[in-house]
Amino acid sequence: MREILISRGQAGNGGGKSARPGFLVYDTSGPYTDPEAVVDIQVGLAKSRAKWLEERGDAEQLSDFSSAYTRRRNQDTKLDRIRFPAISRPWKAKPGRNVTQMHYARQGIVTPEMEYVALRENQAREILEERFQGDRRLFQQHPGQPFGARIPARITPEFVRDEVAAGRAILPANINHSELEPMIIGRNFLVKINSNIGNSAVVSSIEEEVEKMVWSIRWGADTVMDLSTGKNIHETREWIIRNSPVPIGTVPIYQALEKVEGSPEELTWELFRDTLIEQAEQGVDYFTIHAGVLLRYVPMTANRVTGIVSRGGSIMAKWCLAHHRENFLYTHFEEICEIMKAYDVSFSLGDGLRPGSIADANDEAQFGELKTLGELTRIAWQHDVQVMIEGPGHVPLHMIQVNMEKELQDCFEAPFYTLGPLTTDIAPGYDHITSAIGAAAIGWYGCAMLCYVTPKEHLGLPNRQDVRDGVIAYRIAAHAADLAKGHPGAQARDNALSLARFEFRWEDQFNLSLDPEKARSFHDETLPADGAKVAHFCSMCGPKFCSMKITQEVRDYAAKKGVDLDHAVEEGLKEKAEEFVEAGAEIYR
Amino acid sequence: MREILISRGQAGNGGGKSARPGFLVYDTSGPYTDPEAVVDIQVGLAKSRAKWLEERGDAEQLSDFSSAYTRRRNQDTKLDRIRFPAISRPWKAKPGRNVTQMHYARQGIVTPEMEYVALRENQAREILEERFQGDRRLFQQHPGQPFGARIPARITPEFVRDEVAAGRAILPANINHSELEPMIIGRNFLVKINSNIGNSAVVSSIEEEVEKMVWSIRWGADTVMDLSTGKNIHETREWIIRNSPVPIGTVPIYQALEKVEGSPEELTWELFRDTLIEQAEQGVDYFTIHAGVLLRYVPMTANRVTGIVSRGGSIMAKWCLAHHRENFLYTHFEEICEIMKAYDVSFSLGDGLRPGSIADANDEAQFGELKTLGELTRIAWQHDVQVMIEGPGHVPLHMIQVNMEKELQDCFEAPFYTLGPLTTDIAPGYDHITSAIGAAAIGWYGCAMLCYVTPKEHLGLPNRQDVRDGVIAYRIAAHAADLAKGHPGAQARDNALSLARFEFRWEDQFNLSLDPEKARSFHDETLPADGAKVAHFCSMCGPKFCSMKITQEVRDYAAKKGVDLDHAVEEGLKEKAEEFVEAGAEIYR
Repeated sequence: MREILISRGQAGNGGGKSARPGFLVYDTSGPYTDPEAVVDIQVGLAKSRAKWLEERGDAEQLSDFSSAYTRRRNQDTKLDRIRFPAISRPWKAKPGRNVTQMHYARQGIVTPEMEYVALRENQAREILEERFQGDRRLFQQHPGQPFGARIPARITPEFVRDEVAAGRAILPANINHSELEPMIIGRNFLVKINSNIGNSAVVSSIEEEVEKMVWSIRWGADTVMDLSTGKNIHETREWIIRNSPVPIGTVPIYQALEKVEGSPEELTWELFRDTLIEQAEQGVDYFTIHAGVLLRYVPMTANRVTGIVSRGGSIMAKWCLAHHRENFLYTHFEEICEIMKAYDVSFSLGDGLRPGSIADANDEAQFGELKTLGELTRIAWQHDVQVMIEGPGHVPLHMIQVNMEKELQDCFEAPFYTLGPLTTDIAPGYDHITSAIGAAAIGWYGCAMLCYVTPKEHLGLPNRQDVRDGVIAYRIAAHAADLAKGHPGAQARDNALSLARFEFRWEDQFNLSLDPEKARSFHDETLPADGAKVAHFCSMCGPKFCSMKITQEVRDYAAKKGVDLDHAVEEGLKEKAEEFVEAGAEIYR
Repeated sequence: MREILISRGQAGNGGGKSARPGFLVYDTSGPYTDPEAVVDIQVGLAKSRAKWLEERGDAEQLSDFSSAYTRRRNQDTKLDRIRFPAISRPWKAKPGRNVTQMHYARQGIVTPEMEYVALRENQAREILEERFQGDRRLFQQHPGQPFGARIPARITPEFVRDEVAAGRAILPANINHSELEPMIIGRNFLVKINSNIGNSAVVSSIEEEVEKMVWSIRWGADTVMDLSTGKNIHETREWIIRNSPVPIGTVPIYQALEKVEGSPEELTWELFRDTLIEQAEQGVDYFTIHAGVLLRYVPMTANRVTGIVSRGGSIMAKWCLAHHRENFLYTHFEEICEIMKAYDVSFSLGDGLRPGSIADANDEAQFGELKTLGELTRIAWQHDVQVMIEGPGHVPLHMIQVNMEKELQDCFEAPFYTLGPLTTDIAPGYDHITSAIGAAAIGWYGCAMLCYVTPKEHLGLPNRQDVRDGVIAYRIAAHAADLAKGHPGAQARDNALSLARFEFRWEDQFNLSLDPEKARSFHDETLPADGAKVAHFCSMCGPKFCSMKITQEVRDYAAKKGVDLDHAVEEGLKEKAEEFVEAGAEIYR
């Protein structure tokens, strides 16, 4: 939680009567925004979850890493310079044990992770209600339109457990990521957003990627995917996970491809398997696995406008055609499940055949793959492995809802995790906006997590500013969806900010916003003086022209004269009207 | 129309076979983006519509301006310095005549303005189809979900006439704005967007406002509202109209209030009437008139979180309470209609009681006023005066559709014109995004014009960059809505851009986008070299990792070997697969 201090209302307009307590909001930034925390990225964050893991007693710390590749990298002294200094030995489930949150949930166990999640999801509403007792305007909320989502008024740890057990939500929490602050992804919870980072063969370094991760969570990313495709992927990932309070996702096939120097046809199950173990022992919380790209679906993409646009999808399609064999991720799926459950890595079943343009939306390749992802979901659930399903992509506004409906049906209500979708192809440079429109819509319809798109999408690698723009656009989409679903308490922040706006509490308006720095700097551009921060007007209308000011004058007048506005109008008190002119004149001159 | 030249496809990947003809798109920028046009803002644009007006013969040029205020300003030599140099005497309907497009339409007349509109709305589809004969991929389009909108496959001048006659669309075209390139606003046409400009008491100058108008239409604003509230409103407006190829709207009460030094209670009908005539004779194409703010609705706003947030609404509310009389815009509505029809000024019936926060959305004050606007629509139509209806504001996503439905019902299908709506209050600094989400949704449901919101909304006056950001966000929303409604031909630009993307025609991808400068500059940030503009990859994945490149290799392989992909898979040609490995290896190394 983050506490936003509220000013004493010196700016008046209905405020100003008393000191105001702080407002609490859900926060993803871990210790990085805690003024009292000291973060040393050379050491990594505190391993707060470690004691929970030890208490459960069903995992053990290994004497060395299980991945041959990891051991080779660790022994390579040329890499010392870029290696994270404090690497711990990995944890793994004891033989025959299953350490997934789904496994615990299905046995009726409420884990500390589930308790943590329940606390977060309630957004401190009980505290807020006590602090702002009886403020009807702050807690009012419109009934939502939840499309079958069932969000209880208060989220209990037992509710979290039941949702995880049913597969309707996932709690991604690798036992090797004990720095994690647990969170949940499911349509009966707050809508989440993911931010992608990652170096490529062309640009960026380890420091930049760690900085992008911190920057992402500062602005509100709930999870971060490391999509690195360049050199030193292994070492970069270690730095990121050790310093991340949010779940980290990856696409292991990217690294596997690096290991075969970029030739998809040379990929093998053995190489891929070692990569999965390598990453699981570092603490990756979820893996995108493109196991639904089947040989028979590939020809369905031949007449598309943009073919296959998922990197993982195109890699697997090429492998399938080259070997004329079925996708090895599909044929080895149960073995993958065995690995996942030994570390509690969640599946993010990749949509390798997602549409890359409006023209290709909702075609037979896309929906064929979705059915296969449903089939794989069932298998994963037999192993008590957590699953979410990835979705498109590029979809016009009116064709989004059917994506959500089909996903719920074909994948048995496993949480949906979509990229946008972009609602038009004609605005490269602004795809955070083309896609925020689609993301808000699909979030409303029930999508559990929205993968952000930055303004650089289709054009280049995002820098810090692009990451910030993408994350904020997606926080907006997710919150718009929460309001539309009627998530209990979601509207309180809107109400708090609007009350601050109406009462000319400028600092509160900035601080309650998603990006206080930006809001403050925009205000400063036209009215930089400190005095303007307590002014009863703004640069848009100027001092004499403010509708909010006039409204307040109307109200104040009524209060001062002891006139009930309703009554005044009904009775038609002409004499009161004349008094008002005088009073008004005093106010104005 | 604007023609976008398409490269010869030297970048290959399916392209490159032959020279490509230009792609045509709807364009709002008038002569400003025509490389052969010479624009002198001291002279104003060519008065292209003047001959149509003269041919109709039902209007006359007056010997002087009818407004006492205009005459006073024109005689004030202190204003010479800022006055537009080439002021023409105004035109007005001959006594007893009605010069509105609705009046002509209802008599079965197809005006040149209607013909112009029909041409524009078809987006040169016939030419495009001839140029790109048989390119199925370019002209394919998903069926839309139009919510009762009925958009013919080809817009004829007669269809335009019938829509205007029925009141379902307006063609805003003051006879004193002969520089106008006619356009239409209605839900059976392309969704339009409006950009607001205007100086305030605090900042900005005439030059800046003219520049903002030109800047707005360059990026795609279909109409521009001049919301000036500072000094020299009259002179600023003259410069804007004389140089504007798009309809100009105003809120006359703003200027009327300036004339009484900011005291709403001192407003009179006589003063307001003179202001209407002043602006009508300058050529304003539509007036926002807050005639629906009735005395009985004002108390309904007393318990709102943000009261009355429309400037016009709060001014009229204060006037009503101060005088304890009904809104003079309402009581004099028929006289206003008489003025409107003498110049063909369209009504934009203002929503003075629109919600200013999520909490206040869809309340009884808002919907009460909407019913009154419907009543006024009927009266205006009795005078053959064109009407559109303004709408909110701040509305959560799931409560938007009912706004559209009520408007169609209560206002008899008059075109709806909404501000956003913003789907959350928590992101000041990003309200172009919070509102583009709502705007796309309501445009899809049937809203005819979307009033843009800039990132500075709630914080300060927009500068040029903010105007550009706001306009592009709204072009995105409008186009997303057109796609969702299934507007014939809307998808062709998406298809053209996506084909360019797949074929690595970078320059075409930039040029077909809504903001080529931005797209190009983003691409340059990571790969500035000219060579990268013809590269078969981008900085996101690097040369070896491009899904589109891999897809093309799969296709090329199939074509080269004469293998039908479908067939290859069905037959299970293992030997072909082996050949592919060899071929693939060649491609890669």
